[in-house]
Amino acid sequence: MSKKLKVGLLGCGTVGRGLVDLIRRNRRLIAERSGVEIEVSKILVRDLTKDRGVDRALLTDRPEEVIRNGCDVVVELIGGLEPARSFLTQAIEQKKDVVTANKALLALSGAELFRAAAASGVRVGFEASVCGGIPIIRAIASGLVGNRIEAICGIVNGTCNYILTRMAEEGLSFDAALREAQAKGFAEADPTLDVDGLDAAQKLEILAELAFGAQVDPGQVLVEGIRQLDEEDIRSARELGYVLKHVAIARDLGESLDLRVHAALLPAVHPLAHVRNENNAVLLKGDAVGEMIFQGKGAGSLPTASAVLADLIEIARHRREPLQVPEAPVKPVAADIESKYYLRFPILDVPGVIGLIATALGNRGVSISNAAATLVKGKPGQGNVKILTHRTRESVLRKSIDEIARLPVLNGKPVVLRILEEGA
Amino acid sequence: MSKKLKVGLLGCGTVGRGLVDLIRRNRRLIAERSGVEIEVSKILVRDLTKDRGVDRALLTDRPEEVIRNGCDVVVELIGGLEPARSFLTQAIEQKKDVVTANKALLALSGAELFRAAAASGVRVGFEASVCGGIPIIRAIASGLVGNRIEAICGIVNGTCNYILTRMAEEGLSFDAALREAQAKGFAEADPTLDVDGLDAAQKLEILAELAFGAQVDPGQVLVEGIRQLDEEDIRSARELGYVLKHVAIARDLGESLDLRVHAALLPAVHPLAHVRNENNAVLLKGDAVGEMIFQGKGAGSLPTASAVLADLIEIARHRREPLQVPEAPVKPVAADIESKYYLRFPILDVPGVIGLIATALGNRGVSISNAAATLVKGKPGQGNVKILTHRTRESVLRKSIDEIARLPVLNGKPVVLRILEEGA
Repeated sequence: MSKKLKVGLLGCGTVGRGLVDLIRRNRRLIAERSGVEIEVSKILVRDLTKDRGVDRALLTDRPEEVIRNGCDVVVELIGGLEPARSFLTQAIEQKKDVVTANKALLALSGAELFRAAAASGVRVGFEASVCGGIPIIRAIASGLVGNRIEAICGIVNGTCNYILTRMAEEGLSFDAALREAQAKGFAEADPTLDVDGLDAAQKLEILAELAFGAQVDPGQVLVEGIRQLDEEDIRSARELGYVLKHVAIARDLGESLDLRVHAALLPAVHPLAHVRNENNAVLLKGDAVGEMIFQGKGAGSLPTASAVLADLIEIARHRREPLQVPEAPVKPVAADIESKYYLRFPILDVPGVIGLIATALGNRGVSISNAAATLVKGKPGQGNVKILTHRTRESVLRKSIDEIARLPVLNGKPVVLRILEEGA
Repeated sequence: MSKKLKVGLLGCGTVGRGLVDLIRRNRRLIAERSGVEIEVSKILVRDLTKDRGVDRALLTDRPEEVIRNGCDVVVELIGGLEPARSFLTQAIEQKKDVVTANKALLALSGAELFRAAAASGVRVGFEASVCGGIPIIRAIASGLVGNRIEAICGIVNGTCNYILTRMAEEGLSFDAALREAQAKGFAEADPTLDVDGLDAAQKLEILAELAFGAQVDPGQVLVEGIRQLDEEDIRSARELGYVLKHVAIARDLGESLDLRVHAALLPAVHPLAHVRNENNAVLLKGDAVGEMIFQGKGAGSLPTASAVLADLIEIARHRREPLQVPEAPVKPVAADIESKYYLRFPILDVPGVIGLIATALGNRGVSISNAAATLVKGKPGQGNVKILTHRTRESVLRKSIDEIARLPVLNGKPVVLRILEEGA
């Protein structure tokens, strides 16, 4: 005896088509395994004439036919803020459960949507909004629910990870690696959201709110991308036994949260150091389970559809059950952090330059574990001073670097990269 | 408004105490996050006088006080077949939901227990039975429920992985690494279940039945351990660019299942190659998500308690919902497999011995990708011929090896290890 679930779809782009295909292909298997029969009953599209490889009788260009009519669940795959937010709000008001893959909307208005859903007695599924096919939302909300989550460290943007992998393994420049990522469909024509870290920041906010039960003020999160990374730094990282990765970090410090998105040097034994190409991985540290890692495809039509489907089946199994929306306090983001650092100062090669730089760091108590000066091949008189520091407060380090940047021997902007220790 | 869940505990060993501690420590957090208040109301122990660091008023030595009285859920942490099975069966008959960490019992009598639970309208939680704190049962049953699972490849025994890591990284012998594992609490005084592969086989059977919806005949699973592994083979593996790991593999071949537990050579780029020490990891291949990896602590008091707690909270959230028990067909285990192989033949060093061995392999169509002869240091006249094969059927390979084993130049038992390709 199986339960039927009628699904109304908002949007029929790559993920929407993937979902329709996946349901068609695995419907019987899913029904046998979960007791849920899923049927797509209506699909909202802008252009009714475009061929999408789906049954045209299902298509409509009138939102109310999906939101107000006979479906049980509304799946939003339009993306962006509007009209996605209005559609979801209307569906919730109509007492329909909803599923969304819209991380931008959730990062901005998640709390609001969850409150509306609780008031209407319906559910919001959002597994697909973070890391595509990796069931990371479930892992936090269900599998690790008995744990106090202490830290999250993730490679959550496949575009950045693909580019950095190609730069490290093939010696490509950022531009060449980006072009390759675009050709393979791992980067958009306008890659800004990905390579500048904004996409990763949205995912981080969703994960942090879920894991720490605290609201995050998005404006306070430190967000850096990977455009500024140089082949020189990637090479140095490797020579020093590190791998350069773009990571999203969230740590619960008690009174505040440490939230940041940036490139960092990971030691080769770090569990995320071997995550290659377009893959995503999230390391979670719980007080009972210790460190746990979830790795897989973070984007793509079928992986994302797989996550939507997981939410649909869970909704069908547990309909009309009250949704738990804890009163989440707003926690401030920590203003300062402590880390080890990799520093590179482009210099004019004159005697004593390491001494000058080391002294400026030492004067503020920044302790150095390794310092080296190298020459730039084919550019006589130009070089780099590379420094690894012991753990130090970033605010203190920044002051030293400002001083050093004003030295006459400096020949370019200093590069500052954080070094992660083993684990989260 | 939160739901209360009264838990009756059968057994109070390391996991039981861990569970009591974890509930005590995180009770408020869990209630805020999940809306479930968990209370341990009774604990069955054999010896009432022994101090376990838990409230003595909770202890009883009469099973019926846990099974028949006022608790909502019975958690079985006794292990072994009896009396665990009888207790669980009685609890199910009393219409109590149950949670168990007992992989031996589930591998043998899982289907029976699930049918009894469905008949009584109660649930069976068993997240803790496989890979401790890693929420792998949930991943298959919920997160990836929309996927056809094609293959599973896991490092599911922490004892074996610890021993192999220490042998590979520190050059220890099997015996020395085992002693170290025992000293650190990663291996039992009698390590048979772990190092001979039986523990891994039980986990594999549970995962395979869940993932493929088919019952497995335990007697048919190929099970090999790691006692026979030689430092020579671990060193050779590394020189050839491989890592030696103990893996559990399940593949759905349609009409049959490929199920096996054995040591194998993994290429350095294999996603499980970097799983070190006592860690567990499971690679799942789904038709929508592609390859997904879950990694973490596979054993230990708190990780296992974390899994039990996840089941308890899910049961509290969704009580009195019908459990889906699909009619699972019994699928035979495939009699023969195809793989690449690493072969080592201990030999008396005489001219032409590689030729003799290569000819015996070639006569049956076993194709060689690499062959080398080495001398054993300090043992004049003794050597090894090491061979890597292309993909070949194991039944054919075995016949060749039987022939070669009878050659007069052979100086010991041939070593046969499967080589995994990249991924599952």
